[in-house]
Order: sequence, then structure tokens, then C-alpha cells
Amino acid sequence: MSKDSWREKIRIGVIGGSDASFDALKDAEETGMLIAEKGCILITGGLGGVMEAASRGAKKADGVVIGILPGKERNEANNYVDIAIPTALGWVRNILVVLNSDALIAIDGAYGTLSEISYALLYKKPVFGLKTWNLFKTDKNITEGVISCVSPQEAVEKAFKAVHGDG
Amino acid sequence: MSKDSWREKIRIGVIGGSDASFDALKDAEETGMLIAEKGCILITGGLGGVMEAASRGAKKADGVVIGILPGKERNEANNYVDIAIPTALGWVRNILVVLNSDALIAIDGAYGTLSEISYALLYKKPVFGLKTWNLFKTDKNITEGVISCVSPQEAVEKAFKAVHGDG
Amino acid sequence: MSKDSWREKIRIGVIGGSDASFDALKDAEETGMLIAEKGCILITGGLGGVMEAASRGAKKADGVVIGILPGKERNEANNYVDIAIPTALGWVRNILVVLNSDALIAIDGAYGTLSEISYALLYKKPVFGLKTWNLFKTDKNITEGVISCVSPQEAVEKAFKAVHGDG
Amino acid sequence: MSKDSWREKIRIGVIGGSDASFDALKDAEETGMLIAEKGCILITGGLGGVMEAASRGAKKADGVVIGILPGKERNEANNYVDIAIPTALGWVRNILVVLNSDALIAIDGAYGTLSEISYALLYKKPVFGLKTWNLFKTDKNITEGVISCVSPQEAVEKAFKAVHGDG
Repeated sequence: MSKDSWREKIRIGVIGGSDASFDALKDAEETGMLIAEKGCILITGGLGGVMEAASRGAKKADGVVIGILPGKERNEANNYVDIAIPTALGWVRNILVVLNSDALIAIDGAYGTLSEISYALLYKKPVFGLKTWNLFKTDKNITEGVISCVSPQEAVEKAFKAVHGDG
Repeated sequence: MSKDSWREKIRIGVIGGSDASFDALKDAEETGMLIAEKGCILITGGLGGVMEAASRGAKKADGVVIGILPGKERNEANNYVDIAIPTALGWVRNILVVLNSDALIAIDGAYGTLSEISYALLYKKPVFGLKTWNLFKTDKNITEGVISCVSPQEAVEKAFKAVHGDG
Repeated sequence: MSKDSWREKIRIGVIGGSDASFDALKDAEETGMLIAEKGCILITGGLGGVMEAASRGAKKADGVVIGILPGKERNEANNYVDIAIPTALGWVRNILVVLNSDALIAIDGAYGTLSEISYALLYKKPVFGLKTWNLFKTDKNITEGVISCVSPQEAVEKAFKAVHGDG
Repeated sequence: MSKDSWREKIRIGVIGGSDASFDALKDAEETGMLIAEKGCILITGGLGGVMEAASRGAKKADGVVIGILPGKERNEANNYVDIAIPTALGWVRNILVVLNSDALIAIDGAYGTLSEISYALLYKKPVFGLKTWNLFKTDKNITEGVISCVSPQEAVEKAFKAVHGDG
């Protein structure tokens, strides 16, 4: 990928916990690889677990990875991050991960991931889920917001289409 | 309430949409009143809808209301806010509403409320819900995080006990 | 001060270092007392040094003190803060101290105080200085921005007039 | 510059106003070009004026430009930004410009630039100035913090050495 074309690249965020199951890590790595193969830039929170696995996957396919960090030092980023963006904002950085993505794929995850899903929905970014949070309003009988997917392929395909269209 | 005792007062946050149903507003007003009657300080996001109704309720019971605002002007606050705290942080202020509360009561609400619930759970603050979001992890069959209540009385009673204990 | 009138109260911020000289602390305490005697609310960063001395002064005159904290716990505030506002934003909270003040008085201080002066000028809030930073643009021969004062009396009088007018 | 080596690249921030004089813009463009020629990544606030001129200069020398934006849309960035990072944080983004730079070069500028200088000094990042703010403490007769330079060459040379050492 030539850096001259970065401005036009779609950015897909992968969100999920730093403490993740083997299955979640496997899904994350595959998701990152597929994002890079699509020619998209991968956005993550820059740390371990799902963030690192997705980044490793993207680098296997020679992709570009931007990691938006909670602390103030670039070296906090995992080894697969190309562009580390320290923020010194703690968990507020979750919002910047969302803002920097055109669509998001949530993989497993705990409350931090839930906060990212919430802000994604608030900012009207499409969110695709792999074994992650489902959200219900008490008085309704339908899920809201997160589009459940069964595989990394489905999630990346749908995220790409949601931003790029079918063209 | 004498201002000399504020340092010891429990703070309960009420979160919910600026665009709310009649029932939600009625619940919010009652919740605010009960919070003030308990001698607690009410924390809200300072704007309209559920935030304003809860604040109006608290003032009926001569309570103290802190409103944490998304913009940079104090006069953005609704009329029932005693202490307006502008932040100029937009939706990032949702996190400050959470941080300033010892426990939270979510009433109805949309994605903004969901973001506050998420950060409350992230910061390990207890969250009580009135007709609001339920959260499920896909692979589990249980709700997580938000303790569903059937009335303002139950929500305030449980929020108070969660912070104060039974003593 | 009855809490019903808080909405109309002028807020004056006192900014300065947590590590301050004896003279700076003496000036800060007197400044805080004079602010309370004027019927204004004192805003500070809630920690030690100049922030604490100003708050102690305000409480001697039965004033109200709001402390905007860098961390996430209210008990980080010094003993003279009535309303502690945790932010978990680290040094970003300096900007919230500024936003919550109608005018600011800078006493001594280091780079943190300079950051608050900068943001005050950016937000067009008047800043009065007691032995604090002077700002020069290289190509001009005049000070910019901070109005130097020789005493707490002069600083508080001028800050009050800048917000309230002469009436 | 191959993207594989980005992790090791020195980052130099150029700060200055969006409304700048012809001389400041000329200095900024030359500064950006020299930064790229040194093999460093250029960090700016991503908008117009000095930020845009420095970025144009960097692109002339085939450099990489990261623009940290105050708003929430990437297309707010000027045309020479390779990696746009929206923050939706308004002027708080000034702090992120600083945090993402290893050293900073201030060119002319008003209070926004002053806020960036302040935070740079707070975070102990070296700051080099071209016709920008000088900072004096009232009771001392010396400038503090900003190292005045007479040319873009001197500023870039010194900024590079401050981070890289002489080796």
C-alpha cells in the first residue's frame, strides 16, 4: 500500500478485550488479515489481546495498523502497530478509536468493548459483532445496534460494504 | 442541607435521554425527589428530558443538583441545576457524569444512556435500571450489569444501599 | 450563601502550583478570602499548594469552593473543597478549571499554571497575575494577556469588575 | 520511507496559527521540508495556515504527515495530511498534538500555540521557537522554556539533536 493513497482508504476498527479467549484471538487475527486484504486500514486501541491479534493479522497481509493508546507513550503499543497515537486520556481513548473508524467489528469483549459499541452507535458508525454484546431495550423484544455475524469473513465483508457500498 | 456537609453526601446520578416519553419523565421526577429526600446529591448531564425532570424532582425536595454539561457555557443547564459544570467535551462529558456519581439510575434512554451505563460498569459503579437497556453477551443466557427495578422507589432504595450499606 | 442563589454567582478561578513559596501561599489564602467576601464562588484544581491555600481562605469567609480534580476520586481534593469534581483527565482538567471560571487569578505557578493561562486567553477569560508568567511575542515589545497586579486586593477587585462591571 | 520503519521514526511537531503571516508560512513550509528530509514524521494540528504550510513542505520532500484534528471528520484535514486523526475534542486536541511529538517547533502563533507550548513544557518535550512566544516569570529576568531560533534550519537541526542525540 502506497502512503499516497491513505487518504482514500476505508478504516475498520476492531474492538475487543485485552484479556481474550483463544477463539476470540483466532477470530481477531483472521479479521485483521481480511481487513488488510480488502485494502482497508486497521484501527485498534493499540494494546494486547484482541487488539494485538487483529494487528498481527493485518501485518501478515502487509496492511497498515493505527493504534490509539490510552497512555502517553508510543512504546505502550503492541509490536504490530505502525502508527501509535498516544492520548493520555485513559478510557476516554475508546471514543477516539470509534471516531477514527468508518465501521467497527466487535469481538467478544467486556465493558470497555461495550463502551466502544455505545459510542459507535452514538456516532452512527455501523457495528458488526462476533460473539459480543447484544443490546436490548427492556420494553422491546428486539436487539438493537450490533449486527451479529458468524465469521470474520461475514463481519469484514459486511463492514466493508456498509462503508464502501456494493459498487 | 448545609453546604458544610456536602463532602460526606452520597451522589446518585440519573441518566436518560433528553427526548423521553411521558412515563420516563414521570419516573425521573419521582426518582430525583426520592434522591433528595434521602439526603443525596443528584448528578445529571444538566440538559433536558430525563435530566431536567429528575432535577425538578430533586428541587421539590430541596435537594442539591450538579449538572455536568457537554458545552462550554453554564447557561446551557436546565433551570433546576444548582452547580453547572461546563466541560466543552461533547459526549465525552458522559464519562464525567459517571465518575461524579457513586451509583447510577438509568431511565429509558438511547445510545447516550448506553454509553453512560458502559462507563459506569467499567468504573465499577452500580447501575439500576427503569425500562432501560439490558445487556447480554451472545454466548451467555444472562443479563449483565444493569440491575432492573420496577419503580423509582426500588431504584433509589437499592442505589442508596449499594453505596451506603444497610447500617 | 444560600444555595438558591448559586446560579447567579460569579465564579473566580485561582490557579497556581501545588508546590509554592510561602509568599505565594499567603497571597493565595488572602485571594480566596477576598473572593468569598465578594460573594463569588472559588474555582480551583482542588489539590495542594496555591489551590489549597486559596480554598482555606475562602472557607474562612464562609465561601463556596469547587475543586476540579485530575483524578477519578473525590477524596483526592484538599479539605477545603465543598464540591469536588473528579475528571480522570489528568492535565486536561486544567482546561475545565478555566472553563468553569468567569475570570482567573494566577499566583506564581509553573508550566501547569501557564497551560491554564493559555487556555483562559484562548477562551477569552480575563486573567490577573500575582508574580506569575509574563508573555511576550518575540517581535513585539509588549506583554500580552495577563494583567499584572501588585496585591490580592487589586487582583480580586479587577477580576470582579471584569465580570460584573462597575454597577 | 517504507512504512515498516515508522516505529523508529522521530516525530517533530510544528505548531502555529491557522491565520499566519506570509513570513510565518514561508518558515513553516521550509521547516516541514527539512523535517521530512531528516527522515522524521511531521505532526501538526491538521488544519490551515502554519499547519498546512508545514505539511506541504513535508510532502515536497516525500515525508509522512500526521494531522490531529479538533473535529470528528477526517476530511477536515488539509490536503497534505497522510494520516488524519479526528478527536472531537476541540482545543483539547492541542494536548494530543504535543503528546504525539518528540520535540516541537513553534512558528509565530497566538494563544492556541501558547497552549501547545505550555503543554509541551509540562510534558518535558523540547520546544524551539521561530518568532513566537517568549515566557518570563515576573520575578526573574530570564526567558523560560522556549529555545529561540533564527531559522528553520536551526530549529530543525536542534529539534532533531534534542531527540536523537549527536550520534
